[in-house]
Amino acid sequence: MATRRKRDDSSTGKAPPPGRRVARAIVRRVRDGRQRVRLDNDARRAQLLELGMKVFSEKTYDEVSIDDLARAAGISKGLLYHYFPTKRDLYLAGLRTTAAELLARTDVSAIDASPIERVRHGIDAYLSFVAERKVSYVSLMRGGIGSDPEVLRIVEDVRAALVERMFDGPGSPLAIGDHRTPLARAALRGWLGFAEAASLEWLTHPDLEQATIRDLLVDMLLPTLRLALGFSLSRTW
Amino acid sequence: MATRRKRDDSSTGKAPPPGRRVARAIVRRVRDGRQRVRLDNDARRAQLLELGMKVFSEKTYDEVSIDDLARAAGISKGLLYHYFPTKRDLYLAGLRTTAAELLARTDVSAIDASPIERVRHGIDAYLSFVAERKVSYVSLMRGGIGSDPEVLRIVEDVRAALVERMFDGPGSPLAIGDHRTPLARAALRGWLGFAEAASLEWLTHPDLEQATIRDLLVDMLLPTLRLALGFSLSRTW
Repeated sequence: MATRRKRDDSSTGKAPPPGRRVARAIVRRVRDGRQRVRLDNDARRAQLLELGMKVFSEKTYDEVSIDDLARAAGISKGLLYHYFPTKRDLYLAGLRTTAAELLARTDVSAIDASPIERVRHGIDAYLSFVAERKVSYVSLMRGGIGSDPEVLRIVEDVRAALVERMFDGPGSPLAIGDHRTPLARAALRGWLGFAEAASLEWLTHPDLEQATIRDLLVDMLLPTLRLALGFSLSRTW
Repeated sequence: MATRRKRDDSSTGKAPPPGRRVARAIVRRVRDGRQRVRLDNDARRAQLLELGMKVFSEKTYDEVSIDDLARAAGISKGLLYHYFPTKRDLYLAGLRTTAAELLARTDVSAIDASPIERVRHGIDAYLSFVAERKVSYVSLMRGGIGSDPEVLRIVEDVRAALVERMFDGPGSPLAIGDHRTPLARAALRGWLGFAEAASLEWLTHPDLEQATIRDLLVDMLLPTLRLALGFSLSRTW
């Protein structure tokens, strides 16, 4: 019956009695309030995510405690758990954002330069990016949280995206998209493994310049591409 | 007083009374028995180690249970724990043995062939070795137990030994021992990262031949060495 009365009200367009007007205003205020709370939630979540990414970029996963994070954010552990139920959740959210940032920073498709200059720029961007996150990058690549299946999936997704971009990304300077052979994939995956291993060596040995490692990686890409396209040399050695 | 009497016995060289002869025989028998038990212990431990290495080479670390191991060995869980207190202990002991085997199998110093033939032989030996342990190698390299600090140390020790051998191992076919620069180290570490990444791609994609990956790795070694010695190409591109 209550439902029927309500329908009648709205269909006739008559003004509801004062009590109902007040009730509607309250509903509206609550609804608006919920939206405001939701926006606040999103903003707070983004703040915590940013803070988490900062903390996790400076320490290894195991070194970071929820207590530290809550203290740095100036909120209670309980409130932190409300946004990120576990430390792993916050880490994964941060890692996903970091992965997207890495792919954006190393995207050279919009740069107006020669192919080799674009390759050099992209590799430099990669090296600067990992150097800014040295502790967490080394920890991630040398075990640490790297054994978590979800973490591994994010890392593997980034590798796959980088190799895919080398094949055929928009404005790829390599343009070997027509040569998607198993050998070419193994060669490009291999080059990425070279880049990661050489980056780790650079980050853990301060006697190397970024430009030296960058040139090494650029230099290694030419023979990699030649081999990816099927030109073997060693048979003739 | 008892001690004094014993000393007197030995210093005079007189035959001890019958009771003491029996006691000495018992001591001797217990001692011999202990040695026999110890030998049995060593043999049993070696058997369990071999069994563990076999089981761990076919499954990931998490897939292996102590129950499976005890059942395969035909002994109780309690007895297995006597030799290896935890699954991790057995895994680590097996990994150390496997690491030593890998270094032995890829040692080409005694092979009478041209440098490039020896390099090719060593790389083939590496690929065969990891292919025989496909599941555990992929699991080890892609996270899994790889985050355990002790596991990581063993893996890093193998990498360091392989790079050291490339520099200056006995009979190293590369002979760049005079060029131990940070750049050379980064280049050789990079090449090893290439080899690991390309091996993973090969092991997880059956459409690649071992000889194809071997030639790719041999081919990549020439530019790696040229760059390790400081000849950059990209500056002139």
